[in-house]
Amino acid sequence: MEMDQSKAKSEGEVPLGSKIRYPFGGGGAQRGLTIVDLVLRVVALMATLCSAIVMGTAHQTLPFSTQSTQFKAVYKDLPMFMFFVLVNSVACGYLFLSLPLSIFQMVKVASVTPRLTLLIFDTMAMALETAGASVAASVVYLAYQGNTVVNWASFCSQFDSFCRRSSQSLIGSFGAVLVLVLLITLSAIAMSRRITNTQS
Amino acid sequence: MEMDQSKAKSEGEVPLGSKIRYPFGGGGAQRGLTIVDLVLRVVALMATLCSAIVMGTAHQTLPFSTQSTQFKAVYKDLPMFMFFVLVNSVACGYLFLSLPLSIFQMVKVASVTPRLTLLIFDTMAMALETAGASVAASVVYLAYQGNTVVNWASFCSQFDSFCRRSSQSLIGSFGAVLVLVLLITLSAIAMSRRITNTQS
Repeated sequence: MEMDQSKAKSEGEVPLGSKIRYPFGGGGAQRGLTIVDLVLRVVALMATLCSAIVMGTAHQTLPFSTQSTQFKAVYKDLPMFMFFVLVNSVACGYLFLSLPLSIFQMVKVASVTPRLTLLIFDTMAMALETAGASVAASVVYLAYQGNTVVNWASFCSQFDSFCRRSSQSLIGSFGAVLVLVLLITLSAIAMSRRITNTQS
Repeated sequence: MEMDQSKAKSEGEVPLGSKIRYPFGGGGAQRGLTIVDLVLRVVALMATLCSAIVMGTAHQTLPFSTQSTQFKAVYKDLPMFMFFVLVNSVACGYLFLSLPLSIFQMVKVASVTPRLTLLIFDTMAMALETAGASVAASVVYLAYQGNTVVNWASFCSQFDSFCRRSSQSLIGSFGAVLVLVLLITLSAIAMSRRITNTQS
């Protein structure tokens, strides 16, 4: 390829073998995409952090208690909510660790490895985050609606504040899923633009 | 491809406008990846189809019935199981529709658009499939374990066959999620190889 480049140069052609080559101004667009990537990553980080905190601190103690009625509710009472907090913490940690790589690809636009690494790990983080958000959503749904067929009673009429906070924490989590889908899509588009630019 | 390279050498030109150019034998590897893509797609299709059928046909009628005990269980009794069947059907339909595009990219290895299209839609299908599998898994968990804190009783001691089939249907669904993660990863790797090959 080095040979290709010198040949091309000698014939007065575009040095297509050079490290950065975007004949149609692709370099600027690539850099723009990396900035969007970093911003979205910070947004997703904040969303997962908020979700974990809101669910983790959601608790309610009823002013009364009988033998049959539960008088205190925390996220640890339901394994799905524990999973939700765990998953959001892991996703938040990953997103924080991914920031340096996102900044690195902003500086080294031509490098493929950071973008590929981020795309693959983003996909895994997205799967994990979707699983966490979905199981928590299903429990929140059952907590509000109950299910008469299997005799699961709704408990949100009693634990209204706990249920409200639990459902609020879903917003950040599903928001993070959307942002991660967007991040994966952006990475894929950036890669395809690179191929199109280098090919054309 | 061999011809392209030799032509370039003999004519002292780089066939930069040519459609396929993988100086280091990237073409064969690219084609290999497209075959793996097609096979995995068929596997995921079968997995989602089986999951939808197994869950959709799971039903159990108890030999006895009282006023307080439910005597029949079908997937429609729980909204999460309905969502699971719906999501698996949608994913199955999408995977079927994606087969022609997968075959097309096998024929036209150099074309970027089909790979990008598949990557983006695979990501969405993966998010949907993960959500469906997760909500069904959370209900299956609760059906087996129950939850004493919120007074949700396990009903799998009665509906053992229904619960067994429900949990079996999860295997295909989570399998499909794994295959979709693999498909996205493969597409990303194929794209990065293309960049590396054209750049170096």
